[in-house]
Amino acid sequence: MEQIKQHKCHGGTLSYYTHQSQETGTPMRFSLFTPPEEIKTGGYLIFLSGLTCTEDNFTTKAGAYKKAAELGMSILVPDTSPRGKDVPDDENYWLGQGAGFYIDATQAPWAKNFRMESYLIKELLPACETHFDLDATKKSIMGHSMGGHGALTLYFKYPQKFVSCSALAPLVAPTQVSWGRDVFKAYLGEDEELWAPHDATECVQRSACADTNKTILIDQGMDDEFLRVSLKPELFETACQNAGQDLMLRRHVGYDHSYFFIQSFINDHLDWHKKMADL
Amino acid sequence: MEQIKQHKCHGGTLSYYTHQSQETGTPMRFSLFTPPEEIKTGGYLIFLSGLTCTEDNFTTKAGAYKKAAELGMSILVPDTSPRGKDVPDDENYWLGQGAGFYIDATQAPWAKNFRMESYLIKELLPACETHFDLDATKKSIMGHSMGGHGALTLYFKYPQKFVSCSALAPLVAPTQVSWGRDVFKAYLGEDEELWAPHDATECVQRSACADTNKTILIDQGMDDEFLRVSLKPELFETACQNAGQDLMLRRHVGYDHSYFFIQSFINDHLDWHKKMADL
Repeated sequence: MEQIKQHKCHGGTLSYYTHQSQETGTPMRFSLFTPPEEIKTGGYLIFLSGLTCTEDNFTTKAGAYKKAAELGMSILVPDTSPRGKDVPDDENYWLGQGAGFYIDATQAPWAKNFRMESYLIKELLPACETHFDLDATKKSIMGHSMGGHGALTLYFKYPQKFVSCSALAPLVAPTQVSWGRDVFKAYLGEDEELWAPHDATECVQRSACADTNKTILIDQGMDDEFLRVSLKPELFETACQNAGQDLMLRRHVGYDHSYFFIQSFINDHLDWHKKMADL
Repeated sequence: MEQIKQHKCHGGTLSYYTHQSQETGTPMRFSLFTPPEEIKTGGYLIFLSGLTCTEDNFTTKAGAYKKAAELGMSILVPDTSPRGKDVPDDENYWLGQGAGFYIDATQAPWAKNFRMESYLIKELLPACETHFDLDATKKSIMGHSMGGHGALTLYFKYPQKFVSCSALAPLVAPTQVSWGRDVFKAYLGEDEELWAPHDATECVQRSACADTNKTILIDQGMDDEFLRVSLKPELFETACQNAGQDLMLRRHVGYDHSYFFIQSFINDHLDWHKKMADL
């Protein structure tokens, strides 16, 4: 791992790294905040970002590190896809570079590089736990928008790996959104049965989460420009009710999809994950 | 004034505006945060940004609005210069667009547009006070780097206008820095006597501030890459000691010049200005 930049921040350390990924076949970047050493608990939160984002958006805009420093919590922010001139891309911002969807693509031309699920679970998280002395038993996951989809689905796929999950304005049902269907067709092929494990609402409907059933926290702005056509939190809410999955879905009047929404509620999420990790 | 964007943030409102400036002869942009209406005191803080910045850097990266919302404080963030294809510029980032230095240039080709002092004092602040119902008697000023220079010198030039002044890693003595001298020569001409009112250390040495003598708060990171060659806070510190100007200069081990430094100490500055405004 090569450190690109390091900044002291709220008594802790914010660093950017690059490393060569075997899963994506490309260099991958991430940022890591670690709190002041004397109060570092070892626990950490993975924040997955939305479409078009890099590891830098949350890092510079979320205003999360004051609270993280107070809680002794580390925060790991990966990039949203492999990148580079030899990596496939698409003219639509919801497919290709900046739009990895935190899944392993199976279809050409994406399958070779777009392996974000395996990259995160098999490569980045274990590497960071070893390299930065993070506690694998106190690992939480959250995300925004496409990253909320990533956080929810990875939580359902690997229920033993994460102590808690939350999301801000997540994409909860990509298979019920027209551009989400286009993405899954491109990455996963025509057989819709193979899409289900990568759709949080489908996961809950199939009770993939029944063995953990810890409460999931979701915040959603009611002036979010993507709310009605793409995000549709009511689909996930109904599925959770039917499946007996505890969900705290908070609707916030006037808030949109931006980082001004994220910064307004991020502290609640950090407190939430800290509490869940300490249970 | 034309509103470009508006976001709900921490219960308040963050908005971007553009308006046509008579002073600069160009459209000018700024951002304004206003706290939740029920706790809005009317007081406001002007934040002046550093070289290369627009109105967007502080707005998105400083993490200041949670505290501002709690304090009932509004925050106004202007751009750092006039901009546009018909506005003069320079290949050096410390001169021209993005580098207005918060002064009125007197020399060609800068004099026509680069009137940031008059723009702020005669135009933007009065306009905002009227348009957004801000309290002209509870007005504070602060800045970062070149914006720290701007905050200090405008505070000394207009001691009755501002209730308090603070700075993060300010440029305190531009006339003692080689590239600062180049800037002043370009904007103000060869006569160095005319530079003095625009150099905070010179202002204090000439006791321009003796009639107010409220404590000034400055935070400085000791790993700041510009500390030794350009910022030189010890020059201002000595001048303040000699002139009897109260100064609280805090030196912070390990912090650099970035917004990770700014976000680490911004809350202290907001608390400080609130306290000074309430005196």
